[in-house]
Amino acid sequence: MKIANYTSIKPILFDNEQAKGVSARVMIGKNNGAENFCMRLFEVAPGGHTPKHTHAWEHEIFIHAGFGELFHAGQWHSARAGDAILIEANEEHQIRNAGSETLIFVCLIPSGVPEI
Amino acid sequence: MKIANYTSIKPILFDNEQAKGVSARVMIGKNNGAENFCMRLFEVAPGGHTPKHTHAWEHEIFIHAGFGELFHAGQWHSARAGDAILIEANEEHQIRNAGSETLIFVCLIPSGVPEI
Repeated sequence: MKIANYTSIKPILFDNEQAKGVSARVMIGKNNGAENFCMRLFEVAPGGHTPKHTHAWEHEIFIHAGFGELFHAGQWHSARAGDAILIEANEEHQIRNAGSETLIFVCLIPSGVPEI
Repeated sequence: MKIANYTSIKPILFDNEQAKGVSARVMIGKNNGAENFCMRLFEVAPGGHTPKHTHAWEHEIFIHAGFGELFHAGQWHSARAGDAILIEANEEHQIRNAGSETLIFVCLIPSGVPEI
């Protein structure tokens, strides 16, 4: 068993053309003995965004706080606290903060792929 | 791709000796094409609790709102919004609401086991 608040874990920061204003943490991963899937937590600052990318594994996302938009199939879709999002394998996607407070979400991936 | 707010999904209610004041929803599961793991969302009313049980698969939990306590290895541990919890396979566990507002958390399980 492990309990950790995200605020107690030092984030990895991304601030470039691909990922702007993004802080990333592995909350539960292979180092904790998670055998099947991995939980990461992301914070996106107002005006920030994750990279627009595609990969061969799915995301299961839960929005904890804030207001964002998800790019998928050429369109932006609103996403807010309490939303669950499934992005299937090989679907191009990007998330941006569309509000004035930090966008916070957990994003889970299957084991065996890069954790961050 | 699928986006759904938990408030838009009708919950299954549990209110008996084993599980008291619990509302459960499958947010992302096999019916959505999730191949590797399943996201459920639980609300536990003040005074309520999940069943104390053990099973052969792990939980990855993220506390969205409220204040709870996790029973593990004979002790109660505090759990609050922003906490990630790993419960490994075959670890006995139970969660109770230890506050005055609804405790809300997502709990993920591997595919191939009962979704609720």
